[in-house]
Amino acid sequence: MKLYMTPGSGNAYKVRVLTGLINVPCEKVYVNVAAKEQKQPAFLKLNPRGEVPVIEDGDTVIWDSSACLVYVARKYGGEAWLPSDPAQMAQVMQWVALAGNEIQYGLQYTRRGVTRGRWTAGNLEQGQALGRTALGTLEGRLKDSEWLALGRPTIGDIACFPYVETAPDAKLPLDPYPGIRAWLARCKALPGWPPREKSD
Amino acid sequence: MKLYMTPGSGNAYKVRVLTGLINVPCEKVYVNVAAKEQKQPAFLKLNPRGEVPVIEDGDTVIWDSSACLVYVARKYGGEAWLPSDPAQMAQVMQWVALAGNEIQYGLQYTRRGVTRGRWTAGNLEQGQALGRTALGTLEGRLKDSEWLALGRPTIGDIACFPYVETAPDAKLPLDPYPGIRAWLARCKALPGWPPREKSD
Repeated sequence: MKLYMTPGSGNAYKVRVLTGLINVPCEKVYVNVAAKEQKQPAFLKLNPRGEVPVIEDGDTVIWDSSACLVYVARKYGGEAWLPSDPAQMAQVMQWVALAGNEIQYGLQYTRRGVTRGRWTAGNLEQGQALGRTALGTLEGRLKDSEWLALGRPTIGDIACFPYVETAPDAKLPLDPYPGIRAWLARCKALPGWPPREKSD
Repeated sequence: MKLYMTPGSGNAYKVRVLTGLINVPCEKVYVNVAAKEQKQPAFLKLNPRGEVPVIEDGDTVIWDSSACLVYVARKYGGEAWLPSDPAQMAQVMQWVALAGNEIQYGLQYTRRGVTRGRWTAGNLEQGQALGRTALGTLEGRLKDSEWLALGRPTIGDIACFPYVETAPDAKLPLDPYPGIRAWLARCKALPGWPPREKSD
């Protein structure tokens, strides 16, 4: 399997985490975003959205980090990371959805706004408010639970992890969220959890 | 099955569409958002995010429209709307992810900004630019394909439909997107596709 990524993409990191945890060989293909390679025709044929990550596994090409997680979990992860039972699958996908929504717009983009002066959803305060919604929802769950769904690690945890860990860069310190802090440590302690290549 | 909703929620409409298409009885429970019922403890027990839709099916409670679609499709839709094959499932989930991301922030919230003066992701022009990314990605697919994934209607189409149909309210007319316009008509012609309760 090939993973098109950048060293700094937290969304590509999600896929690296899952392939690391379940020990699926994954060849990294670095996309040159400085040269806008992801917006060129060759890459747009892989992903019409023009973003990393993309995975290529034989004839199968999947874009979007959530969809990549679904593919890898169902193809190589058995029932562990995304079970086939409809209620259990949906309980996991709730958190994957939170990652693509409030966490991305409230934590990822606010961080980028703070650290690089780039686009934020609303002004910084509005982005931070959305980030606090994400953190509050997560803390509500994690204050009493070790994991987001099913009482065990799933792709819900993996999807939420990268931009929650970097929330302090968005000027959202994690001190008020002890449940989240314990969960971040628990995630990183899982056997096979890979380090980031770069803090982004 | 109960569906907690408002007449105006496009996200709840997605669930109504799927239950309509596969003919699953669904009792509507209207949530009084004017009175902020969705932020009260009783509702937050169902959905810690404090939003409609939520479905309740016996002991199973699912929040987030994407997760609700996954649940209903896998529980009651056989292999039709979200197949169990990993590659096919992920191909559908790519478009479900687009709905919760660029479509929500670029089309839903921009529309709300235009029509109600409420929060937009960035300023209106930035929200519209994000909306155009969503529409361009969809058109790139729909100019040559009848449906977003697998050559047949899936929950990918259902997830994208509501806020693409209302893109003109966000001052993003659909004239430049003939593939999208034909697809919207094709969706609405599916047997069992329910009308909106209110244009929101």
